[in-house]
Amino acid sequence: MKTAILSIGTEILFGETVNTNVLYLTRAIHDTGNEVIYHITVGDNNERIHRALDTVFKDCDAVIATGGLGPTGDDITRSSFAEYFDLPLRRDEKTEKDICEFLNSRKIQPTSNNMKQALIPSGATIFYNGVGTAPGFMIEKDGKILISLPGPPAEMRGMFENSLSPVLCKFSKGRVVTRTIRTLGIAESNLESKIMDLVEGQKDPTIGTYAKKGECTIRLASMHENEEDSIKALNDLSGKIKERLSGYVTIEGDVPLPEYVIELLINKGITVSSAESCTGGNFAGLFTSIAGASKVFNRGFVTYSNEAKVEDLGVDAETIKRYGAVSTQVCKEMAEAVYAKTRSDVCVSVTGVAGPDFCKKPPGLIYIGVHYRGNTEVFELNTHSAKRNVNRRAAVLHMYKHIYETVCAGIEGTEND
Amino acid sequence: MKTAILSIGTEILFGETVNTNVLYLTRAIHDTGNEVIYHITVGDNNERIHRALDTVFKDCDAVIATGGLGPTGDDITRSSFAEYFDLPLRRDEKTEKDICEFLNSRKIQPTSNNMKQALIPSGATIFYNGVGTAPGFMIEKDGKILISLPGPPAEMRGMFENSLSPVLCKFSKGRVVTRTIRTLGIAESNLESKIMDLVEGQKDPTIGTYAKKGECTIRLASMHENEEDSIKALNDLSGKIKERLSGYVTIEGDVPLPEYVIELLINKGITVSSAESCTGGNFAGLFTSIAGASKVFNRGFVTYSNEAKVEDLGVDAETIKRYGAVSTQVCKEMAEAVYAKTRSDVCVSVTGVAGPDFCKKPPGLIYIGVHYRGNTEVFELNTHSAKRNVNRRAAVLHMYKHIYETVCAGIEGTEND
Repeated sequence: MKTAILSIGTEILFGETVNTNVLYLTRAIHDTGNEVIYHITVGDNNERIHRALDTVFKDCDAVIATGGLGPTGDDITRSSFAEYFDLPLRRDEKTEKDICEFLNSRKIQPTSNNMKQALIPSGATIFYNGVGTAPGFMIEKDGKILISLPGPPAEMRGMFENSLSPVLCKFSKGRVVTRTIRTLGIAESNLESKIMDLVEGQKDPTIGTYAKKGECTIRLASMHENEEDSIKALNDLSGKIKERLSGYVTIEGDVPLPEYVIELLINKGITVSSAESCTGGNFAGLFTSIAGASKVFNRGFVTYSNEAKVEDLGVDAETIKRYGAVSTQVCKEMAEAVYAKTRSDVCVSVTGVAGPDFCKKPPGLIYIGVHYRGNTEVFELNTHSAKRNVNRRAAVLHMYKHIYETVCAGIEGTEND
Repeated sequence: MKTAILSIGTEILFGETVNTNVLYLTRAIHDTGNEVIYHITVGDNNERIHRALDTVFKDCDAVIATGGLGPTGDDITRSSFAEYFDLPLRRDEKTEKDICEFLNSRKIQPTSNNMKQALIPSGATIFYNGVGTAPGFMIEKDGKILISLPGPPAEMRGMFENSLSPVLCKFSKGRVVTRTIRTLGIAESNLESKIMDLVEGQKDPTIGTYAKKGECTIRLASMHENEEDSIKALNDLSGKIKERLSGYVTIEGDVPLPEYVIELLINKGITVSSAESCTGGNFAGLFTSIAGASKVFNRGFVTYSNEAKVEDLGVDAETIKRYGAVSTQVCKEMAEAVYAKTRSDVCVSVTGVAGPDFCKKPPGLIYIGVHYRGNTEVFELNTHSAKRNVNRRAAVLHMYKHIYETVCAGIEGTEND
């Protein structure tokens, strides 16, 4: 069915609150097999809420609204929706009890404002709130469906997943199955041109490509009555796409490449140490952001200055003088020095020109060294960008890419072999 | 005047494109002294574009639209807006010339689709595009204003700043002046209760509070006919707020505390080294993300394992055994060891329990050590959170907070003294 997302909250229109709910809901509603044809945001204003409902109900079957269910005087969604469908508000006893318990546990005395949250339009289906106090609800009347969810993202998401998603699935002709293919090392425009004919000829699965922080992502979605048919359609198409992208790193799933690599290393008990120059600790920072990293991440050196490279790692000062800090030679010595110090299974190093202010070499020139099983390989990357953050991010991503290619490709399937 | 933001693009309703334009425009329009009372998104669909305009023009004076100005068949904003106001489309010769030059410089042969971008509703004011090919335009008719901007954020922002902002300023009764106060170490609810009476009694300046990644931000906005009056109102209120928050770190400006501290250290030539355990390199990573960091950031140790603390830093293995890796004692030895190795002006250390899987001490317990001018102070922080990312982020923020309090407070004003 056709749906609209209605966000209610003056703070969004002041630019004080970023409306993250709308993106979440858009994707989540699509995944139930229903369409989204409007986004609309209004303040806590009865007349404009009604005007928005009038507008979108002209060609929508259902409206999913968020916000305005709080306990303060500004929060008028409940009464506004009840009035729109000419329904009286009635007290829900379970909600009243829940609110009292919730507040008592925090040693807060319930007020009449708090109790306002227990008023629900008569006849509406109630969605209880597992996180906060405000319940959501669904009104079905005159062939239209109006759903009200709380504004705080954690409450809204919990309620959508637990209560609303199953309801919306019933209204769709099938269930959407999605798949994400992640690629690294290919520009978005180049990626698009390689799969353009697949995108253009294609009704199901749909293909969306987007670039984020250096990785390109391809999102496939298929909807058939039968889930197996959707999966088959996705398998066919993803096979074709991977064929087009042979030569580039492609992985499937919702996890970005670095996290994917880190989890693989943790699961296989492969130890890692690093020496970072231009990335300044971001490789180690990302690695240790994953739970369980302490099992395999041994240590990291942020050798930003030349002295640090010499004193902490033992890189030869002569090599730096001769080739410069940003060179294959220094990068190789850094990786080997880390191995000499730590004996970690994988020792990775990076040195590069992040910004335009650094040295005579062009910004965007980056060397990445990987020591593994007695061999050190050094890879050159050139982003041709003068942007500091672009270069640092690309460097970290490519460190994980090269670890993936050097180490993971060989071990990935070993459990199934 | 009252305005609405209309986003046009089916890709937004598919959840494929994140609509970042709407937040930018909301804030930017407010800063011109005008109100935003609707956000609305529709696909590239003539009927729904007209319906959206009908709805919002009921109580808006102006609509600022983005998207649908591209060269492909889907892009119908130009013709849809012309039809809405019953205006013919006419060719703009300057735009035609610009498009040809733009494409020729990229060795692309212009097509009739490209030339579609040079069609503008008759009588509209044209906003030329400094970044891409599509011009924007403004129609004024029947007391209503309809503005069309391109969808790509860089093009939209450039056009807003250069062409539209001055126009919108003319329609407001004054210019909004804003100020941002950043606080650290106080929870948002606690902050709100401390300034609640100021927020509630206040019409101008308006006060917005929001929390992001561990920092609380207070945004003040004042609008008077006369800019000086706005500045005076901001000075008065910000003085009152800072009085309420005495005892907490508060800084003014658009720069988050860490960046503020780093820039100050760089400008003053104060050298820094670090030893990180639970933050895994994120302190160093953030420091080195700022241009010029190489002048003062000497080196960082990511001593995630106990062996690393002993072997790389020279922490006493006995201290770790006796007090545990997460302890005042180990934290102190780490900071002092960094100083012994690097002789940097500021040597900072951190050790803490990031997640629940790590040791017997409670997650969220973090020690931060700062060595400066012969003294080492260790600060205890307890977030009472089991969330890994919350704890790591809080730890990094508080490292900068303690450096600020220990080092910067005394040097900040030295140039003016």
